[in-house]
Amino acid sequence: MDSYAAPLRDMRFILDHLVGIDRIAALPGCADAEPDLVHSILEEADKFAAGVLAPLNKVGDREGCHLDGERVVVPNGWQEAWDQFVASGWLGLSLPAEYGGQGLTKSLWAPVWEMWFSSNLAFTMLPQLTLGQTEALEVAADETLKALYLPKIVSGEWACNMSLTEPQAGSDLAAVRMRAEPAGDGSYRLAGQKIFISYGDHELAANIVHLVLARLPDAPPGIKGISLFLVPKFLVNADGSLGEKNDVRAVALEHKLGIHGSPTCTLAYGDHGGAVGYLVGELNRGIEYMFVMMNDARFGVSVHGVALAERAYQMALRYAGERVQGKVLGSAGLPIAAHPDVKRQLLAMRTRIFAMRALVYTAAGWFDHARHNPDQEAAARSRRYIDLLMPVLKAWNTETGNLVCDDAIQVFGGMGFVEETGITQHYRDSRVTRIYEGTTGIQANDLVGRKILRENGATLRELLADIRAETTALALVNDLAGHAHALSVNLADLERSLDFLLAQGQGAPALVQAAAVPFLHLSGLVCAGWQVARAARAAHAGLATGADNADYLRGVLAIADFWFATYAPQVRAWSETVQAAACVVAAPDAALYG
Amino acid sequence: MDSYAAPLRDMRFILDHLVGIDRIAALPGCADAEPDLVHSILEEADKFAAGVLAPLNKVGDREGCHLDGERVVVPNGWQEAWDQFVASGWLGLSLPAEYGGQGLTKSLWAPVWEMWFSSNLAFTMLPQLTLGQTEALEVAADETLKALYLPKIVSGEWACNMSLTEPQAGSDLAAVRMRAEPAGDGSYRLAGQKIFISYGDHELAANIVHLVLARLPDAPPGIKGISLFLVPKFLVNADGSLGEKNDVRAVALEHKLGIHGSPTCTLAYGDHGGAVGYLVGELNRGIEYMFVMMNDARFGVSVHGVALAERAYQMALRYAGERVQGKVLGSAGLPIAAHPDVKRQLLAMRTRIFAMRALVYTAAGWFDHARHNPDQEAAARSRRYIDLLMPVLKAWNTETGNLVCDDAIQVFGGMGFVEETGITQHYRDSRVTRIYEGTTGIQANDLVGRKILRENGATLRELLADIRAETTALALVNDLAGHAHALSVNLADLERSLDFLLAQGQGAPALVQAAAVPFLHLSGLVCAGWQVARAARAAHAGLATGADNADYLRGVLAIADFWFATYAPQVRAWSETVQAAACVVAAPDAALYG
Repeated sequence: MDSYAAPLRDMRFILDHLVGIDRIAALPGCADAEPDLVHSILEEADKFAAGVLAPLNKVGDREGCHLDGERVVVPNGWQEAWDQFVASGWLGLSLPAEYGGQGLTKSLWAPVWEMWFSSNLAFTMLPQLTLGQTEALEVAADETLKALYLPKIVSGEWACNMSLTEPQAGSDLAAVRMRAEPAGDGSYRLAGQKIFISYGDHELAANIVHLVLARLPDAPPGIKGISLFLVPKFLVNADGSLGEKNDVRAVALEHKLGIHGSPTCTLAYGDHGGAVGYLVGELNRGIEYMFVMMNDARFGVSVHGVALAERAYQMALRYAGERVQGKVLGSAGLPIAAHPDVKRQLLAMRTRIFAMRALVYTAAGWFDHARHNPDQEAAARSRRYIDLLMPVLKAWNTETGNLVCDDAIQVFGGMGFVEETGITQHYRDSRVTRIYEGTTGIQANDLVGRKILRENGATLRELLADIRAETTALALVNDLAGHAHALSVNLADLERSLDFLLAQGQGAPALVQAAAVPFLHLSGLVCAGWQVARAARAAHAGLATGADNADYLRGVLAIADFWFATYAPQVRAWSETVQAAACVVAAPDAALYG
Repeated sequence: MDSYAAPLRDMRFILDHLVGIDRIAALPGCADAEPDLVHSILEEADKFAAGVLAPLNKVGDREGCHLDGERVVVPNGWQEAWDQFVASGWLGLSLPAEYGGQGLTKSLWAPVWEMWFSSNLAFTMLPQLTLGQTEALEVAADETLKALYLPKIVSGEWACNMSLTEPQAGSDLAAVRMRAEPAGDGSYRLAGQKIFISYGDHELAANIVHLVLARLPDAPPGIKGISLFLVPKFLVNADGSLGEKNDVRAVALEHKLGIHGSPTCTLAYGDHGGAVGYLVGELNRGIEYMFVMMNDARFGVSVHGVALAERAYQMALRYAGERVQGKVLGSAGLPIAAHPDVKRQLLAMRTRIFAMRALVYTAAGWFDHARHNPDQEAAARSRRYIDLLMPVLKAWNTETGNLVCDDAIQVFGGMGFVEETGITQHYRDSRVTRIYEGTTGIQANDLVGRKILRENGATLRELLADIRAETTALALVNDLAGHAHALSVNLADLERSLDFLLAQGQGAPALVQAAAVPFLHLSGLVCAGWQVARAARAAHAGLATGADNADYLRGVLAIADFWFATYAPQVRAWSETVQAAACVVAAPDAALYG
């Protein structure tokens, strides 16, 4: 019931036909995107995910983490999983080549890490932190810090975390108060408390490297006075050996709704004179560097969305194939998967999973073009698309993924409410994906504010032109002309909403903010529908040319049919909501009190 | 953070203007609906809910229930709460007058029980079981059983439960296997296992009366061979005193996602020779009698939907008023309730709660007219409306209520994922309301099958005419003409979908079943929107005549604005989905496999 198998057919189809993995493989530095290598990486990752990580997922949920004195105790099996993950080269695979990693292209990163997240999100947050931190250090740290820390981080000898949040500074990092004072020797002494620190402490690695936001006594107020510091759990000698324990410790663990296997720590820095820290990059540029980690983390979380949905779906599909109930359509004793309403639920889950996956892998392809495409214009456009859509990827995928996990419970009926069944875990785990690394509200404000209004909608218009080109291509395929029409209606709704936002512009910021989340949903649906349309066209072409995976391709066409029957119509509703946002601003306080 | 106060202004406004409590009070047997009495009952119920039940809600969640040998141990405080609930007359208030109760009219039942469910659902399931059982015994049991059992049940000396589900017979009661054999003395011996029995065992009352579905050895197969039996935990002597323990015991408790304070038992009947049981009513009519309980229980669950949403909303509203974050619209240090996106979230919650409440109280009024209106035609029409809409009330309210509880977590941001905050409980508790007493899928099939196709849509057409009359009335109010238009568009969408279902009719059962859930959502939105429209018209009239609650009434108008901006547009999307249901039926199996 609880096993996991990577959806390899989807992964390959999307890589081949939507990402264009062959074009990625032709880019400098992307040799791992060659078909043979892709094939074997995906197969091997599936084995590791299914064999090592997946069986531990429920263990982590049941056992959770706890504090034993000052020791953070993680679930049984975590140590072995981490050791194997590192030893098998899965950590290094995704890390930069210049520090001993293999610099996996993002297009492959997405399916491979989807497997890790599907099989065990709570565990995989640990190596994911290593990735973000490596990127931040690479961008911002000086050569000394890099030389001393990066090799140990990349090799997995040391683990990482991000110490950002404080009780009064949740989404609002400007309110960070953690103090950092120069010690006179080039290092700093940090003091203060951080909360919600994933893998803030544990004993899985010999050392832990904290990246910490803090401010100097004379720093300017707000986000422009925040700096980034590296604080090791154990001090590091110049030769890389470990010195004494630094002044930082876990004082509490959160009792959370989900991801129980991931220790969420309250960390006390400097209770005994100050934690020794080292400035990363320049003073007062901490937020900027933090966003290097954050953007990577956000993309990762968008993969969490599809990954948890996939795991929950696999369980629901298996249960629906085994559970026999009732008389339906005149036949007794059929598995519930044959009940039309249950089939509808399964297809609804599967369709959204396919759409999420298509969207996020396509975006991964943009990452690769942005980094590696020698055609500067193509690279720049890919970068613009990524920047524009990052909040959509993060928020739409996690909102959608959480809903799919919710649907999976429903397939189980009464058994779905029983913890032993295991399906509740994905519902609980996935709930946080809509919150961490910036809530859906934060993402939506980023989208309409920084990403759209600030450039007067230029990149979104560019993207809309691409979608319009797809409707034109789709309209030429007789069987898919209905979808072409539906997508062009969706496109017009999105454009009208964009015009509305731009017209309100800076003049009515409250209205724009009130419209932000509906606009984000609208954007997510249209962008996902765009990918579904592309998939339908590719599947249709494959069938026309006698591809040998005809059954699978017919399935893709059915998914597109369901998408345009069920999700595309929601675009109009969201666009009407965007245009009625004034009613939120106008509502008197009394409206909130019953 | 965790306190509760009944939304008395809403309750009174809806009773006065939508239910027409004055007309109910004029019906024979409904004297408790007089304004003064309504006022004092609501005030007192609020005190009990806020003072006694609400503080125990989190206790129940944390402690849960456990099995100590064969004893079912419920949370601390449960015994005192039950004793007080009975002693204060709250149990008797809702029970039939002929057995010593006070026969509360349903229009009052709805707000009063909403308060119990809001304050502590897990606890309140216990007295709710008493209500359903009393009704079933009243309808079906012979005078001897009634005389022996009902007075003790009504007085709260004995508790009740419904033993329906078996592992192989979830939603499919036709598969019930529990055996009942005649003992020769008029009683029966029952043997078999029941699962998911809420309050299946405990020590809160001196005795427990189980109503059990079982079949005689020679009974016909399927639902027509199922009978209803009364099985007491302790045998009852002819004088009403208790005899020896019967052969029924709890062998396990479920570990559930929510409602931890309610013990969900696996009950073993007849492990030691057979549990003594008594036939209720006639042989092989068990399912029919069970539906007497079930219909009552389903209405109750529709109130769970609004009740849990209200509790979660109150917490979120309080938090949003206290939590200061960030710079917004140029001002620093505002509570997040002033952030436009958070205000949108709060208004979205509040609007749906208002709509659910308006819908379910209105339905409660129909109950009263159905039972008490001397005008036979009016009574019959009310009965038809209740029968038609019961699945919509149950499913739409619980789907919507669960979503509101989900939104409440989002208002808390990172704190929302932490169990100590308390907001997760409502998300977890409310998840089951979409499952128990028939999943949303079951309700939807009941709606389109038994309630619509079987009578060729007659009652729904009657209801649509009522909604059309509302659009006409609303269109006469200048300020509300936009809502009148929106509602009439919704109405047309619902009618078109109805025509579609009827046209497919019996010829395409799979298609109709695949369209059922979308059709249910569509129906729920239109019926709720109808009540919101009525509320807007009443509020507008109140303001025009200088009512003294002008702030509240302006709030109602703002709620209606938000409804017609956000929820009314979703009707079109659902109606398009209904009409595209063929794509579900047509999808090949391969579509389900990635």
